[in-house]
Amino acid sequence: MSAKPFKSPNDNFYPVLLAGGSGTRFWPRSRRARAKQVLPLDGEQSMIQQTMERLLPLAPRENFWVITNSHLEEILGQQLGKMPPVQMLCEPVARNTAPAAGLVAFLLEREAPEAVLGMFPADHVVTDEERFLETLAHGIKLAAEDGNIIVLGVRPTRPEVGYGYIETGTHVEDEVLRVRRFTEKPNQTRAEEFVAAGNFLWNSGIFLWKAKTLADAMREHLSETAPYLEQIAAAYGTPELEATFAELYPKCENISLDYAVLEPRSTKGERHSNIFCLPADFGWNDLGSWAALYEHQRGTATGSNVLQSADSYVLRAEGNYVYAPDHFIALVGVDDLVVVDTGDALLITTRQQSQDVGKVVRHLKQIRREELL
Amino acid sequence: MSAKPFKSPNDNFYPVLLAGGSGTRFWPRSRRARAKQVLPLDGEQSMIQQTMERLLPLAPRENFWVITNSHLEEILGQQLGKMPPVQMLCEPVARNTAPAAGLVAFLLEREAPEAVLGMFPADHVVTDEERFLETLAHGIKLAAEDGNIIVLGVRPTRPEVGYGYIETGTHVEDEVLRVRRFTEKPNQTRAEEFVAAGNFLWNSGIFLWKAKTLADAMREHLSETAPYLEQIAAAYGTPELEATFAELYPKCENISLDYAVLEPRSTKGERHSNIFCLPADFGWNDLGSWAALYEHQRGTATGSNVLQSADSYVLRAEGNYVYAPDHFIALVGVDDLVVVDTGDALLITTRQQSQDVGKVVRHLKQIRREELL
Repeated sequence: MSAKPFKSPNDNFYPVLLAGGSGTRFWPRSRRARAKQVLPLDGEQSMIQQTMERLLPLAPRENFWVITNSHLEEILGQQLGKMPPVQMLCEPVARNTAPAAGLVAFLLEREAPEAVLGMFPADHVVTDEERFLETLAHGIKLAAEDGNIIVLGVRPTRPEVGYGYIETGTHVEDEVLRVRRFTEKPNQTRAEEFVAAGNFLWNSGIFLWKAKTLADAMREHLSETAPYLEQIAAAYGTPELEATFAELYPKCENISLDYAVLEPRSTKGERHSNIFCLPADFGWNDLGSWAALYEHQRGTATGSNVLQSADSYVLRAEGNYVYAPDHFIALVGVDDLVVVDTGDALLITTRQQSQDVGKVVRHLKQIRREELL
Repeated sequence: MSAKPFKSPNDNFYPVLLAGGSGTRFWPRSRRARAKQVLPLDGEQSMIQQTMERLLPLAPRENFWVITNSHLEEILGQQLGKMPPVQMLCEPVARNTAPAAGLVAFLLEREAPEAVLGMFPADHVVTDEERFLETLAHGIKLAAEDGNIIVLGVRPTRPEVGYGYIETGTHVEDEVLRVRRFTEKPNQTRAEEFVAAGNFLWNSGIFLWKAKTLADAMREHLSETAPYLEQIAAAYGTPELEATFAELYPKCENISLDYAVLEPRSTKGERHSNIFCLPADFGWNDLGSWAALYEHQRGTATGSNVLQSADSYVLRAEGNYVYAPDHFIALVGVDDLVVVDTGDALLITTRQQSQDVGKVVRHLKQIRREELL
């Protein structure tokens, strides 16, 4: 199977880009109004632009939906251009992925119950796009069957503790496995056991199912939240939408799709859950930290420094990530640092400790430095 | 003896500020057009402004002379204000301290042969100004005697390898020692021997002598260079000055005062050299590197970080020097770094290796990045 057959988009496939994250992990580049998904962290286009471009061979532009927040509405409108503006939903408050995905399911269930929805985190990297499209096309076909839930699993290349894992069970057919259970981010020992076991895959956060399947799953597993979402969906296209959204969405449970629907479903036992995993290697990376970005971008040359600068001079320095696009940079005798200079803020940390940038953001919230958030 | 007696300046004392250095060691803050001596590295005033202010209790403003270069002429004119502009001499080429000091000696010898000249590096720190003025006033008195050369010595507090040392001999009177010899920067073992011996002092680079004494010493020890300097001095105040300066100064020997005059003189034996050292502790520091500036400025608080920034957040980070005055700075898990952000350039190094910043400047010269030099 090659990527070519997908050049003509499938009118029945609706990608939903989950773009509500606040993206504190890339501070000081990421801010409320320019979270990770709208940053060009890797290349010229932003993460969400790349996510959309990557999917355009499979779905027409007018099928895309985006769930985001009011901080990002304006910049997403600029970046995503020709998408129908009413298909960008701004959550009045953040409620994680289950209510966001559920709302789109209820909206589409009314008009296109047979539509296949794809849930896509809007800030991940995929390097092998052909393989990605192949896997996805296969998944869309499987998801078109009532009740099926498809998740894309990534074969682990290391005992990563930053990802959730999917434990797979029996083969249904070539390249299709039943899902036994979803697991949270493991500790180092568990992660090593997972990789050694061979049947654990990284959870890419990419899910496929029919609008009707997801809507039914919401009614079953989120029985308190589902009616709120249905009321919001009923107000869609009317003058009441904004008020209804603002009133009811905050009442929805703050929970991820994995926790709300997939974990309870998988406890039915793999033969009855109808959750299937497509394992693939399409160069996926969720870029969860400055260190992950460094690892994604480093080449083998120049002492493995990743330098985004006007120009640079490096003397006895290795393994550094530096973002300071307007500067000439001199690195002398320093290793494994992360240095990010945005003109108003300067972060200096190590690759090892760069995940603690979230603590800086917490501090800035406490002291109400709004302009740096 | 207190500082009070010196509040009325001595009309016969002429401070000469040696401000021709290019100051590569504080790159990227220091550039050709804003070398270390014109930077406010420590406090609100520049190093040379502080040097001048420190001396004003001892000499009227119109007695000051400054030797510098054309890159710094304009900014020095702004910083030093009311000084007579003709007493700022711009070397057409750098020739180290001997020709610079000699030229002033020949100039003053013509009009005020009994004047006492003081040679002062324009980029050093003195923290105990009262003690400094006391020592200097004592030195001026001694230097008023024909043939005497006075040098201020600093009692070493550590086996520093970055300074020259003065080996002292017999006591002449209380707090006045004969000089046995001047030594270059020692290696670690020698430096430790010097400190253990007890009669070695740091060479502050501050010398006092009559104009006539210095002029005679130049004629004796720099016999080829002295006539050029005398011709330039003769052209002073005439329209020929600039052309004569430009023609003859490059022919002068490129040599320091210590090498040219003091070392040869000291070989006459301490009883005949007429070189005397006044030992004192006046909190002197030549601020030779970012690490030296860090050590000068660090307090005991805030984990010993020295941070010049708009605001900061520090998490598990110690011993860092950061200059980024327009930034909010976050330091997470990094120790002993030097980070200097000037908007157009960013230096990242360690305190241990910060002396290698000179190599960055050499690189910039090679690739002709004039705007960063």
